[in-house]
Amino acid sequence: MRLDLGGDPVELCAALVDVPSVSGEEGELADAVERALREQAPHLEVLRSGDAVLARTGLGRERRVLLAGHLDTVPIADNLPSRRDGHLLHGCGTSDMKAGDAVFAHLAATVIDPRHDLTLVFYDCEEVESDRNGLGRIERDHPDWLHADLAVLGEPTNGTVEAGCQGTLRVEITTRGRRAHSARSWLGDNAVHAAAPVLDRLTGYQARQVDIDGCRYREGLQAVRIAGGVAGNVVPDVCVVTVNFRFAPDRDVAAAQQHVREVFDGFELAVTDSAPGALPGLAAPAAREFLAATGAQPAAKYGWTDVSRFAALGIPALNFGPGDPNLAHTREEHVDTRQITAATDLLRRFLTG
Amino acid sequence: MRLDLGGDPVELCAALVDVPSVSGEEGELADAVERALREQAPHLEVLRSGDAVLARTGLGRERRVLLAGHLDTVPIADNLPSRRDGHLLHGCGTSDMKAGDAVFAHLAATVIDPRHDLTLVFYDCEEVESDRNGLGRIERDHPDWLHADLAVLGEPTNGTVEAGCQGTLRVEITTRGRRAHSARSWLGDNAVHAAAPVLDRLTGYQARQVDIDGCRYREGLQAVRIAGGVAGNVVPDVCVVTVNFRFAPDRDVAAAQQHVREVFDGFELAVTDSAPGALPGLAAPAAREFLAATGAQPAAKYGWTDVSRFAALGIPALNFGPGDPNLAHTREEHVDTRQITAATDLLRRFLTG
Repeated sequence: MRLDLGGDPVELCAALVDVPSVSGEEGELADAVERALREQAPHLEVLRSGDAVLARTGLGRERRVLLAGHLDTVPIADNLPSRRDGHLLHGCGTSDMKAGDAVFAHLAATVIDPRHDLTLVFYDCEEVESDRNGLGRIERDHPDWLHADLAVLGEPTNGTVEAGCQGTLRVEITTRGRRAHSARSWLGDNAVHAAAPVLDRLTGYQARQVDIDGCRYREGLQAVRIAGGVAGNVVPDVCVVTVNFRFAPDRDVAAAQQHVREVFDGFELAVTDSAPGALPGLAAPAAREFLAATGAQPAAKYGWTDVSRFAALGIPALNFGPGDPNLAHTREEHVDTRQITAATDLLRRFLTG
Repeated sequence: MRLDLGGDPVELCAALVDVPSVSGEEGELADAVERALREQAPHLEVLRSGDAVLARTGLGRERRVLLAGHLDTVPIADNLPSRRDGHLLHGCGTSDMKAGDAVFAHLAATVIDPRHDLTLVFYDCEEVESDRNGLGRIERDHPDWLHADLAVLGEPTNGTVEAGCQGTLRVEITTRGRRAHSARSWLGDNAVHAAAPVLDRLTGYQARQVDIDGCRYREGLQAVRIAGGVAGNVVPDVCVVTVNFRFAPDRDVAAAQQHVREVFDGFELAVTDSAPGALPGLAAPAAREFLAATGAQPAAKYGWTDVSRFAALGIPALNFGPGDPNLAHTREEHVDTRQITAATDLLRRFLTG
């Protein structure tokens, strides 16, 4: 099958959708993308890495912009091949994220003389376990291919800009007591009752909101689990409250831990897992240019996304793409084709200056 | 094997212990007890019911006293045959409750002319599920054999008198919220946090103490379980606190429910199970006589025991027996033989007036 990179990116999106590419089975689509880039974008250096395809200019520009999109989808749900209905294109992967892939591939082939050097990364296995993620493999095998001054991931954002991400920290707070038969409860000491002040501190907690690079981050401190109890006639001797702290990226993990320890001062507390946040990095020149060109008001990204991989490399990164994130992974997945056209126009304006 | 009912009740206890009688396997011991009663207590009418043996006088006395002891034991724990060590008799069932059985069987055979009519009940399957309990079968098959003005169960009480028992009520209190990703917790409503006031009410609860017939009952309201949580990154939408209320027998189940509903007013509450308490009934004439003869200060029974079966029949009932309840069901089970002698003397004084 032949992909026409230079034609209408809406048609290109439908063509990408019609090559099934569930995570781990991206081979046929990667072959098609690689062949199209080699044939229709001879100004680009092309690299194949597993079922990822990379391409880049070598124009010696002052800055380099990286456009990245994953080729894989979640499992098909009776929603292939794609189907047009007025302005809507239906099908698995339309929003998440072959619309973004189509925009990037079309620009790769048609913007011959960009004002920044360009790197394209079409990668595999974003929808599955982190250790299978194609970006991780590229980072290990071809680290020089990820150098850039700004990374744009084409995840569906309805055409808005989402930047940075919050960190996450999970702790277990344990209260202890003494077991006793509940018929003689005064011989015991109830660990579940002892958890009352832990819950009181959670209900009384005022979550911080902070603005960074124009993005507002809203923190949260939430019990995600509580468990205690031995039997229906026993005063429990242990109760564990699991608390998840989602923190703005101006705190690092150590500072987040310190904060949570202060909130639960006096209680037994163990950290079970954590992941750092990512600063939006929108003050970087290439990012400012991007925002100016798109006219978008950036918003904080709350979940952990591949943006964080670039942030960890010191590269400002943001999500920007056509499609509705709320439709991702649904049977009803579709994309408004006008968003594909609009995103193509905005990005072209940014790249051509 | 021959049981000598008329000899030393300590020797009789050892003989009873040396016939293993784990619940469901009481046949050999029941045979021995039945044969001994028929041969050595010809003044008694004897009835066999399954592996229970019953016997009674028919003297036409104004009142009737029932002495009941179970023949079964928990599984043997390398602690048979019995072993004497000074004043201690070791072995499975020594405290719980062949010492009490020995006292009752000895008095059955040797008190020929009691001041109250006497009924003896040696029954099976007390240590297992309630629906296998021999007393329940006797109540169905031979209800007239359980008529009495006072029931004495020979459970180990270290020779003190325990009367009545508390009721028990279990309720589930459910708090509800709205699920959300913990990274966007303000879109949710945390059901675990909503349980904070439930725990606060428990910690602030002042349990009542009440004296009934000279017994002090201490109530208790305890969380026995708490559970809530969906996943490590989800704001939970449901939390359930299971609460056990142990209540003095001056409340019936309906009143206990009403009280718990008042304590948790405003919360979703479901009753999961309940059992009524049993009033001590020590104001009854036969019970007052018993207390006068033994000189014991009665204490409330906290757990649910077969005393409650008699209370439900309107018969004042109490536990009184040699042996240490804390040794029941242990590998180290033993009985102080002086308690056997003392209990025999006290009961003989009561029965002969």
